[in-house]
Amino acid sequence: MFDRELAQRAAGNLKKLREKKPLIHNITNFVVMNYTANILLAIGASPVMAHADEEVEEMVSFAGALVLNIGTLTRYWIDSMAKAGKRANELNIPIILDPVGSGATRFRTDSARRLINELSISVIRGNASEVLSLANEDSRTKGVDSIHSVDEAAEAAATLAGEIGSSLAITGKVDLITDGKRVLRVSNGHELMGFVTGTGCAATAIIGAFLAVESDPVIAAASALAYYGLAGEKGAERAEGPASFMTASLDALYNINAMELEEGARIGK
Amino acid sequence: MFDRELAQRAAGNLKKLREKKPLIHNITNFVVMNYTANILLAIGASPVMAHADEEVEEMVSFAGALVLNIGTLTRYWIDSMAKAGKRANELNIPIILDPVGSGATRFRTDSARRLINELSISVIRGNASEVLSLANEDSRTKGVDSIHSVDEAAEAAATLAGEIGSSLAITGKVDLITDGKRVLRVSNGHELMGFVTGTGCAATAIIGAFLAVESDPVIAAASALAYYGLAGEKGAERAEGPASFMTASLDALYNINAMELEEGARIGK
Amino acid sequence: MFDRELAQRAAGNLKKLREKKPLIHNITNFVVMNYTANILLAIGASPVMAHADEEVEEMVSFAGALVLNIGTLTRYWIDSMAKAGKRANELNIPIILDPVGSGATRFRTDSARRLINELSISVIRGNASEVLSLANEDSRTKGVDSIHSVDEAAEAAATLAGEIGSSLAITGKVDLITDGKRVLRVSNGHELMGFVTGTGCAATAIIGAFLAVESDPVIAAASALAYYGLAGEKGAERAEGPASFMTASLDALYNINAMELEEGARIGK
Repeated sequence: MFDRELAQRAAGNLKKLREKKPLIHNITNFVVMNYTANILLAIGASPVMAHADEEVEEMVSFAGALVLNIGTLTRYWIDSMAKAGKRANELNIPIILDPVGSGATRFRTDSARRLINELSISVIRGNASEVLSLANEDSRTKGVDSIHSVDEAAEAAATLAGEIGSSLAITGKVDLITDGKRVLRVSNGHELMGFVTGTGCAATAIIGAFLAVESDPVIAAASALAYYGLAGEKGAERAEGPASFMTASLDALYNINAMELEEGARIGK
Repeated sequence: MFDRELAQRAAGNLKKLREKKPLIHNITNFVVMNYTANILLAIGASPVMAHADEEVEEMVSFAGALVLNIGTLTRYWIDSMAKAGKRANELNIPIILDPVGSGATRFRTDSARRLINELSISVIRGNASEVLSLANEDSRTKGVDSIHSVDEAAEAAATLAGEIGSSLAITGKVDLITDGKRVLRVSNGHELMGFVTGTGCAATAIIGAFLAVESDPVIAAASALAYYGLAGEKGAERAEGPASFMTASLDALYNINAMELEEGARIGK
Repeated sequence: MFDRELAQRAAGNLKKLREKKPLIHNITNFVVMNYTANILLAIGASPVMAHADEEVEEMVSFAGALVLNIGTLTRYWIDSMAKAGKRANELNIPIILDPVGSGATRFRTDSARRLINELSISVIRGNASEVLSLANEDSRTKGVDSIHSVDEAAEAAATLAGEIGSSLAITGKVDLITDGKRVLRVSNGHELMGFVTGTGCAATAIIGAFLAVESDPVIAAASALAYYGLAGEKGAERAEGPASFMTASLDALYNINAMELEEGARIGK
């Protein structure tokens, strides 16, 4: 079932995060910028949003992690992501990518693949269709498009992680995290999260913050998703709809301490 | 007074909306993107924001309606709106336009008129001065600029709707909806809505969602405005200021069911 | 200690603000646009966001004040700020600048200095490191970089205000306001403000609104910061975390009346 040791790792990482208060550089979409910044402040990190060609390399050099999110992409923004990402790679600053809408339009799929090809990315976080759209045509024809069970999905994700060379965090009712060798599952969360915009993007940003304090990307992602999901569960207890849920779960992110996370995290293999 | 049958239509449309969960493609302004996305999720629709030249035609092809909003316009954004709109017209996907600030600057008025000229638009939603600014110079000199009563406003709006070839939804204390032949009035709403940014833009997006399930634009607009206004009334019961009002009215949008809408809608002729 | 007369001035300015309901033109960053607009509505002002090259001069001509904020700057946005600012200067419309992140990257520092050089700015609002980064290399080498006490900071700020020719509002635990001759201190506020994104930017926008009704920039800034800080104090009484704090303090901004501000303002010399 759930792994006690992994819950302890999550709790330890939350403690480290609040001590270190890492600067997280976000190049993200217009819809979620405000929410993402508030999420990062609530968990104890320090957010900065900067996308100008002239400054992304300098800004990322101060950061503990770089969050790239293509939700309202244009060419300019993708170019800035690539530029910031290359500098992050040079400095060994971890990168997390959220390929919002990849698979929906060719421009999104191409842009996500470009970033994956040009950069070394620690974690890619998306829903199943976004993440699986990143597989090349060949592997898609061979199987990714014909998945019929959870186990097949896990296998396909593990194969894809190996191909891409990044850890994958596929979020859904149960989150699936894999680096191609290991597979972890996180069962925290609440269905109201689907009625607030940017909860997926927030999960990505929180994983980014954990990458700044935990060098194992699979553990960082599992810690972050258990923590965010637990905040959703606590928020739902006080919610009367999606807006009060958003307020209560953001408050919960701020209030949850390491011990509560250790008790509430549901991370398993 | 209020029309029982129109209230039933509104309730039926809300049911259809929640069953169909239409994708609503928004090309809108930076101020309201987050709020608009949360509004659309709360009512049961599925929002997407995409403005890149490279993808708007592809994205709109999946949508049940296209929402265009010029609130923080630049030429690039207006060009993308025109491009997405042309594709929407080809595919018979309904378009709603929010001419934010039309009449305030020449660039806004010109941009709104350009979209009206290039596209076939189902509904234009704005306040009285925004909508009436869309009249051509000739008709403005002849009367739009010298309106002294509510009845004169209704007459001017009906004339303008005929000229433009779109239904108009003029929101205010009482909302006025006309396609040039019919005139409907919606009396739902609360004055606190004027203290939250983006409530007009939210009304536009909600009408967009109803256009995806109701082919008569006058009925779609009336259904949407009665529903949103009712949520405002319910939100105000629990508000202690504009921020708690925003939270409570978003929760109310999510919670109101078809029967409550049928009972609470105040739509008349 | 605290100055009764300055508290009365603040209260009188709040009254004037609510009577005049000035239009505030914001060219600001993507992260805080929604929050800033809601802040301005809550205090009784009328916000507009417009950054297009084609319209900024026309838009600012209707405004009671112009708010410039470089938080997510690109060259296009800075050019628009300069253009709007020049027109504002011609029309004697007060300008407030928020040099977000100045000192962090060269592009931000250069952009902030460009605006300061090209425009006559009434107030610059930032944290200590942002504001002090605006000093020229010469004065920085001579002292700004080696401040060891609050009194030294006040002295450095007063010198810098004289050099730049703008009033400075340096916000922190205690806010420091100076035009080079006078120094005021405001002690209102709450530490939860540091856990909500855009509270600094909101302070800037509120000062902007007060500049539209109070011609003395030092008094306008002190009035605004006491008012916003008081709303934070009241919000904190009902908060269970940063999100409920944001809601409650926005509600408080709307609800605080002139008498409460006069009683609660902690402005001193």
